[in-house]
Amino acid sequence: MENGSSSSSFVPSTPLLKDELDIVIPTIRNLDFLEMWRPFFQHYHLIIVQDGDPSKIIRVPDGFDYELYNRNDINRILGSKASCISFKDSACRCFGYMISKKKYIFTIDDDCFVAKDPSGKEINALEQHIKNLLSPSTPFFFNTLYDPYREGADFVRGYPFSLREGVPTAVSHGLWLNIPDYDAPTQLVKPLERNTRYVDAVLTVPKGTLFPMCGMNLAFDREVIGPAMYFGLMGDGQPIGRYDDMWAGWCMKVICDHLGLGVKTGLPYIWHSKASNPFVNLKKEYKGIYWQEELIPFFQTVTLPKECTTVQKCYLELSKQVKAKLGKVDDYFNKLTDAMVTWIEAWDELNPSVNAGTAAARKPNGTAK
Amino acid sequence: MENGSSSSSFVPSTPLLKDELDIVIPTIRNLDFLEMWRPFFQHYHLIIVQDGDPSKIIRVPDGFDYELYNRNDINRILGSKASCISFKDSACRCFGYMISKKKYIFTIDDDCFVAKDPSGKEINALEQHIKNLLSPSTPFFFNTLYDPYREGADFVRGYPFSLREGVPTAVSHGLWLNIPDYDAPTQLVKPLERNTRYVDAVLTVPKGTLFPMCGMNLAFDREVIGPAMYFGLMGDGQPIGRYDDMWAGWCMKVICDHLGLGVKTGLPYIWHSKASNPFVNLKKEYKGIYWQEELIPFFQTVTLPKECTTVQKCYLELSKQVKAKLGKVDDYFNKLTDAMVTWIEAWDELNPSVNAGTAAARKPNGTAK
Repeated sequence: MENGSSSSSFVPSTPLLKDELDIVIPTIRNLDFLEMWRPFFQHYHLIIVQDGDPSKIIRVPDGFDYELYNRNDINRILGSKASCISFKDSACRCFGYMISKKKYIFTIDDDCFVAKDPSGKEINALEQHIKNLLSPSTPFFFNTLYDPYREGADFVRGYPFSLREGVPTAVSHGLWLNIPDYDAPTQLVKPLERNTRYVDAVLTVPKGTLFPMCGMNLAFDREVIGPAMYFGLMGDGQPIGRYDDMWAGWCMKVICDHLGLGVKTGLPYIWHSKASNPFVNLKKEYKGIYWQEELIPFFQTVTLPKECTTVQKCYLELSKQVKAKLGKVDDYFNKLTDAMVTWIEAWDELNPSVNAGTAAARKPNGTAK
Repeated sequence: MENGSSSSSFVPSTPLLKDELDIVIPTIRNLDFLEMWRPFFQHYHLIIVQDGDPSKIIRVPDGFDYELYNRNDINRILGSKASCISFKDSACRCFGYMISKKKYIFTIDDDCFVAKDPSGKEINALEQHIKNLLSPSTPFFFNTLYDPYREGADFVRGYPFSLREGVPTAVSHGLWLNIPDYDAPTQLVKPLERNTRYVDAVLTVPKGTLFPMCGMNLAFDREVIGPAMYFGLMGDGQPIGRYDDMWAGWCMKVICDHLGLGVKTGLPYIWHSKASNPFVNLKKEYKGIYWQEELIPFFQTVTLPKECTTVQKCYLELSKQVKAKLGKVDDYFNKLTDAMVTWIEAWDELNPSVNAGTAAARKPNGTAK
């Protein structure tokens, strides 16, 4: 299995959800990595969230349809509410979720390349995510042959028939070949470990079970779960980093469980090319590693009242419980709670109704092709 | 992938747990299928539970070390308590769990053959089960790269460090290539569907999640969970069949969750050669298909009190709750409840203490090689 770059890639003739999905990419550098994704991404619209110095020019390969937002854009569009968007951390990507007007989001890191399946074929990760999102999930009972909706599979003997319709899928979490998504301590202990195992499965994370959601290769239905996909306060001026996607994953999962929505993990794989510096990561992570021992029991036991019938209501209720229960762990969680509320306010401002056509202050930097 | 039969199979030089594991096989016919398993099973002891007509002679290939019990043996050994062991149904296999004196059990159906992995290598199913049982489980949090204890894998970023020791594994549930384990309706609708997908993963079924446990290819630690592996009342004189393993799976899972034990599913695969008759199966299953709609909510919500600190105590408490909650679904569940109690009494009689050497009335039919 290796980083493929042939130009003979399979190009789907009619890309799925072409006009209903945005690809969100947080970056600080030129987006040369898109060259490899061209056959798979060229028909989709990109939302690029430029992190760091806004005066830097980010080069996007020709032929891509994109809009680009730097920190100045975020500040201008959100005003004082821009405080909820992280700076100098890939957590800033969630601004792209908020500014999008599409039903679906796929987000990918700029050090992720096209992986190959065991037969050597390049994997169209986006297409697999879309398949995951468009087929139901089965959070209430585990199917031992994995995704029962996949061709050649079904529900096995003993699976209750009343549960076979499944529930709508909110999130599709993809995996990584080559560099696994390890924390700093594990990176330090196993610097040479590479993920070479292609597990040909998609499965629903059961109701009541938390998992570590990685933002590197992730898709979701923003109409259904978007407001829960807040990546928190990380990076510049904050005491932690690298917990942005984890935080979003825990909040999102609790809300999906409450609202009866599904979360899948497994296929598709991308090729993760570059391990981040474990020493830098350790500095970013160490408080998170400590705090998560209190966060997980919190998220494992949190319950939302029946009145919480929308993602926004769930999220605001969750922010209250975070303040009440985690505020005493560290004052950071009080700040984070305020930012969670600000995030929802900003989301609702930019997305006044589900089918809103255009948002008020939207003025992207980039230009359509 | 196909049913392999070469004689060049890899034979492990020192079979794992050779003197600590029994292989339990329920059957009504000559055990020619063992020829194919010879390289993998020949060093282990077999417990053959002969179902149906006890006067029939079951032929066992030469060179296997086995004991064989038919219905007369079961009646003689258990006396009046033999009523808890099903007749004319593979549920009778659980007698083998009870009579064994080993720490571990592997049970397999006689229409299951050696499968091959994608590289064409014959799969040593027993060895994989043993690996699954000897490494911990992770029921409290989902690891997206599957079994974190497997070579080349680990816990991913965001996995709480306090949970990385895992818990003891009680059960290893293996899967099937070729004929999938479908219920009669699915068999009827998809008569030609075959499972050709080799999913290279082992994963823990999370705490609080039920799954359909199939008895075809299953291993467990009988010292740790044995008394919960009762396969119920099925077959002759009973209103249902083909729910023996399901019933055991639901009871076992609830008890494992209560006692902090782990259950794994995934590898190893066996090659399931022969689909059973869907019309016959439908007759056996139809009440179960109906009843399970009430059973699943029961098992999803049942809780065991803290005082239940052993599997036996858990199982007896569960039997009370079954009587109270499911007795009204059908009188069958009252009979089943009584049988659950009888099963525990018989288990304790044959296994007076964990390290008991020999049981009282034990007199196997078969002879050691």
